[in-house]
Amino acid sequence: MADDSAARDDALVIFTPSGKRGRVPKGTPVLAAARQLGVDLDSVCGMRGICSKCQVSPGYGAFPKHGVTVASDALSPINAVEERYDRVRGLKPGRRLGCQARIEGDVVIDVPPESQVHKQVVRKAADTREIVMDPATRLYYVEVAEPDMHEPSGDFERLKRALSDQWKIKDLSASLDLLRELQTVLRKGEWKVTVALSRGHHDDVPRLLQIWPGFHEGRLYGLAIDLGSTTIAAHLVDLRNGQVSASAGVMNPQIRFGEDLMSRVSYAMMNPGGDVEMTAAVRGALNDLATGLAGEAGIEPGQIMEAVFVCNPVMHHLLLGIDPVELGQAPFALAVSEALNLTAPDLDLTAINPRAGIYILPCIAGHVGADCAAVALAEQPQKSEDMVLIVDVGTNAEILLGNKDKVLACSSPTGPAFEGAQISSGQRAAPGAIERLTIDPATKEPRFKVIGCDLWSDEDGFKDATQDTGITGICGSGIIEAVAEMRMAGIVDSKGLIGSAEQVGTPRMLPEGRTHSYLIHDGTATGGPRISVTQGDIRAIQLAKSALYAGARLLMDELGIDHVDRVVLAGAFGAHISPKHAMVIGMIPDVPLEKVISAGNAAGTGARIALCNNGARSEIEAVVRGIHKVETAIEPRFQEHFVNANALPHATDPFPHLTAIAPLPDVSFNIGSDREGGRRRRR
Amino acid sequence: MADDSAARDDALVIFTPSGKRGRVPKGTPVLAAARQLGVDLDSVCGMRGICSKCQVSPGYGAFPKHGVTVASDALSPINAVEERYDRVRGLKPGRRLGCQARIEGDVVIDVPPESQVHKQVVRKAADTREIVMDPATRLYYVEVAEPDMHEPSGDFERLKRALSDQWKIKDLSASLDLLRELQTVLRKGEWKVTVALSRGHHDDVPRLLQIWPGFHEGRLYGLAIDLGSTTIAAHLVDLRNGQVSASAGVMNPQIRFGEDLMSRVSYAMMNPGGDVEMTAAVRGALNDLATGLAGEAGIEPGQIMEAVFVCNPVMHHLLLGIDPVELGQAPFALAVSEALNLTAPDLDLTAINPRAGIYILPCIAGHVGADCAAVALAEQPQKSEDMVLIVDVGTNAEILLGNKDKVLACSSPTGPAFEGAQISSGQRAAPGAIERLTIDPATKEPRFKVIGCDLWSDEDGFKDATQDTGITGICGSGIIEAVAEMRMAGIVDSKGLIGSAEQVGTPRMLPEGRTHSYLIHDGTATGGPRISVTQGDIRAIQLAKSALYAGARLLMDELGIDHVDRVVLAGAFGAHISPKHAMVIGMIPDVPLEKVISAGNAAGTGARIALCNNGARSEIEAVVRGIHKVETAIEPRFQEHFVNANALPHATDPFPHLTAIAPLPDVSFNIGSDREGGRRRRR
Repeated sequence: MADDSAARDDALVIFTPSGKRGRVPKGTPVLAAARQLGVDLDSVCGMRGICSKCQVSPGYGAFPKHGVTVASDALSPINAVEERYDRVRGLKPGRRLGCQARIEGDVVIDVPPESQVHKQVVRKAADTREIVMDPATRLYYVEVAEPDMHEPSGDFERLKRALSDQWKIKDLSASLDLLRELQTVLRKGEWKVTVALSRGHHDDVPRLLQIWPGFHEGRLYGLAIDLGSTTIAAHLVDLRNGQVSASAGVMNPQIRFGEDLMSRVSYAMMNPGGDVEMTAAVRGALNDLATGLAGEAGIEPGQIMEAVFVCNPVMHHLLLGIDPVELGQAPFALAVSEALNLTAPDLDLTAINPRAGIYILPCIAGHVGADCAAVALAEQPQKSEDMVLIVDVGTNAEILLGNKDKVLACSSPTGPAFEGAQISSGQRAAPGAIERLTIDPATKEPRFKVIGCDLWSDEDGFKDATQDTGITGICGSGIIEAVAEMRMAGIVDSKGLIGSAEQVGTPRMLPEGRTHSYLIHDGTATGGPRISVTQGDIRAIQLAKSALYAGARLLMDELGIDHVDRVVLAGAFGAHISPKHAMVIGMIPDVPLEKVISAGNAAGTGARIALCNNGARSEIEAVVRGIHKVETAIEPRFQEHFVNANALPHATDPFPHLTAIAPLPDVSFNIGSDREGGRRRRR
Repeated sequence: MADDSAARDDALVIFTPSGKRGRVPKGTPVLAAARQLGVDLDSVCGMRGICSKCQVSPGYGAFPKHGVTVASDALSPINAVEERYDRVRGLKPGRRLGCQARIEGDVVIDVPPESQVHKQVVRKAADTREIVMDPATRLYYVEVAEPDMHEPSGDFERLKRALSDQWKIKDLSASLDLLRELQTVLRKGEWKVTVALSRGHHDDVPRLLQIWPGFHEGRLYGLAIDLGSTTIAAHLVDLRNGQVSASAGVMNPQIRFGEDLMSRVSYAMMNPGGDVEMTAAVRGALNDLATGLAGEAGIEPGQIMEAVFVCNPVMHHLLLGIDPVELGQAPFALAVSEALNLTAPDLDLTAINPRAGIYILPCIAGHVGADCAAVALAEQPQKSEDMVLIVDVGTNAEILLGNKDKVLACSSPTGPAFEGAQISSGQRAAPGAIERLTIDPATKEPRFKVIGCDLWSDEDGFKDATQDTGITGICGSGIIEAVAEMRMAGIVDSKGLIGSAEQVGTPRMLPEGRTHSYLIHDGTATGGPRISVTQGDIRAIQLAKSALYAGARLLMDELGIDHVDRVVLAGAFGAHISPKHAMVIGMIPDVPLEKVISAGNAAGTGARIALCNNGARSEIEAVVRGIHKVETAIEPRFQEHFVNANALPHATDPFPHLTAIAPLPDVSFNIGSDREGGRRRRR
């Protein structure tokens, strides 16, 4: 009899796409069954048929794959709540509200993507990691008990109890200004309210951000901010689905205090109050950026309820208002390295909700910042099966090396050459800059592309297409390609010396004192610049690339390995570097070409992940604690690797993957006197 | 051999006064032995011979009581650190530094009171509870590891690790402005610093309040504030030893918005922004009070690093800046009832350290405030073996009844009569006010004392002694004594009616319309007032006392008891009530006279306890959660008790303890028409 009764009283329910299945008592609402079986089905209003987040699509008929046939009465008939919802707001055909529809027989129920709490955000192909939505900040609808004189308690305590009972949120903190609003809002909403909460992570007590009477439909937004020395890039992200509503990048206004990080540290050292000036400048820019993004997306600034920052250590301290002077000298001590949970007023962020939480990723070391932590969060070297080298190329290259067993990090002082600075015809990546270049190995003639034009320089219409921008200089990726192409065309030898017109056999080789340069483009006839690669430019690139390579080698030594399986180039600049050319100049260790990939702005991606997924914060904090840091500045082997890596690769070098893809002519030039020989590497 | 070795290698150590004893390896420092045996021996500097907090007095010779004889070399000889300390700062004869002196043989060691962390503060006789010092805020001296490029971490993280290693403090939070100072202070102190921490309670992360280079000797202070409707009383307490450095009381400036709580609630209801005005007024007064106390004690305002508040619910909300309107109407819902941990800026307290923590005790119900919770903390009804009734007498009487099994609480609307308001000759307790009074049962002549004079009115020199103050009126305790004495002298009958001159037999009975009054003092000849007790005054006292009595009876009903073992009168006013007179007018249930005690300002004492003992906070929060609240406003039996308690006690009433101590004449008067009969009790 017990068996009979069981057969009659419960039903099999199968959820797709998860495939989760189980038996539930007949009469169980679909949403309750989903929760019981651990199926990801959203709900904001707590089974009250208000929010419609729990929409499902039941399937009927035979499901041979699942071994079940679903009768047309497997779910309870559409009820009054659903009818009303359909009438007022519309329900797609076949859709049911999971909180209203009850399971009356064996059934297969599909949960459409928009009804999943932990929606997966589809990312661009270049990105390697999916973001699972589980933001720290979200809305909850609750029904709060009315005050009872027989069991007196504060309205706030009853709100807490309701959140605990209805949402399993066990504690709550609120600022005095919210406690001030609480009584009015509760009564206006007749004890039904929607609250925005920031759950925090670790054991943080969830924090009340806002409260609205009744059911509130509004959307919450967050900012993912990559605060770089040169540019500040921010995404405004819809915290329900992770979609980027607006993006913007502005120049970091601290540039007026110094182009690179060390000159800003110097500014702070030399000018009392200089750090305060720089802090005010960057905070002002952040407010402008937030205002602009809110305007572009057409939302209220108050809807921005969270922000996540990634940045290098100097920017980190200047954002926090901490004098970065200690970061300018050994032992490069950070004031604070752990992840920080702050609120908007702590950083004078007046352009977003004043109760917005701020999360700043942890720094790894005095030269390896929260931006590198964000790269690790996006690229996950700690989960890699193969040995991966991740390079965030910038003024300082931040380097991660490792796999699931161990991850190392260091920072290498590449200097600004990779960004087009200290290059004779160098410029920032902007319209008019040469970004791609090839040289014909026979004729030694160059062809190139400039930013802002899709045509190559030898294609028809190139001249007209570049009329507006002009051809103004050569950017970071362009100079790397130029040097690599010069090497492959036999214009430069493996020591980095440029040959003369006679040696190379083209009038493009111009004497410059006792060295030579290679003319790429002469615009002087039309008032433009003459763009060439000088011996000094080659030396600057050699210094930069050998610093980067030496950092990677140092980490490889530390792990006792002599090759890596995979190289990831991160950073906005990394996205534009040609892997082949990077290998030709010896920036990165020898790996199969297809194993060199660009991760785009991985730091920015890491910021978005931390914004959209609360658990990712604890994850990256644990990863950072586990990362072994190597300080290049005090490591004699770094100097050794740096000197050894100064030359450009040669055909006889043991770089099998490189020599397979690129010709490395066995030429050799000389020089009367290398004027650049005395130049010293700078930090 | 093992036994031999043990006998040689360890020694017996006995600590007094605790009597704790145990064996420790020879060579163990006294402080380490104390810690190992759980002996309360202070230390701030962590065994470095700097702070001298661990001073002990070793005993030598025979200790028959302990069964041990102490050799003169039982401790290691005085070492260089101790010699230097004695030379520079002086060490009392016989004293040793517990961190330097090592145990070399069996020894008896006395820990003087000043070397105990948990010093017991001796309280006045009126106080019933000792305060054990264990404040939330104290100083810690730490030696922080220097930065290491091989193991990079932030200075803040190394400070945390030092606190964890050296003080077992497991986590730490710091505001950005402290993180800003951190690097400079650490370097100035050569990695030795003193920090002030607020430990918080529950699972709160300890909070950094201040940091000084090196060893810092400064003292930390806290404020214990009893924020009353009429007066604000504050003690400035030295957080090392609990001593009160300065005390002050000021009028609550909100009085200009309404004398009593309900008129202030009305003010807020009738005047938009009125609550904001009142909040600003009280916060301003608190800043003035703090400034005054710091000045009086000769300390810097920044040394005040903590404040504890107790107050009634309306003052609680007005302090927090929450509109108290809901407290003026059923169901008397508090916005928030639980204990609050805030910081000084939350309450605009600019006159103390800006990082000072603020602790506000929990409210019990809409009419039973944090002041009542503080009374419970001071008087501990929840630990009482006998059944205790605790009454905090004021405009609203807050009543606690119970024992270790159960505690009940209610608030009873006594009105302001007990404070001398709404009494014809009434005034606040101030110089010139009659505070004590007796009436000769034969002659019906009164004699009295006024505040500010130690003589009775019939003693020689009284006239001269009161020349300055005059005799200006009658205060709350005076009116209670007057009514009780009138009852005992047969001037008032048990219905509360005053007899005529004929009926009583004294010309002091003056006709007033159809009722009579009793003349206490006629100062009109010298331009002073005529002070009498009118029929209206008797009625006002009857209303007040029956409200109080009805509240107590309601709680007794709730517990199913008809007598209590003990009555505690709390509140500044409670300290001045004569227990006998209170019983004569029927304010309190019948108990043996010696079982009625005054607890003085128990709410203020509770505030001091919560300031000096961090654990007391969790304790009172748990107690408050366990207190069963009874709402008098909606309880029909309260009305019933109120009406029944209106009469004054009569000799035939079943009040054996009362009738044993006081004559209750069986007189009976009447009245043409009781003009006061239509008067209604007000909340």
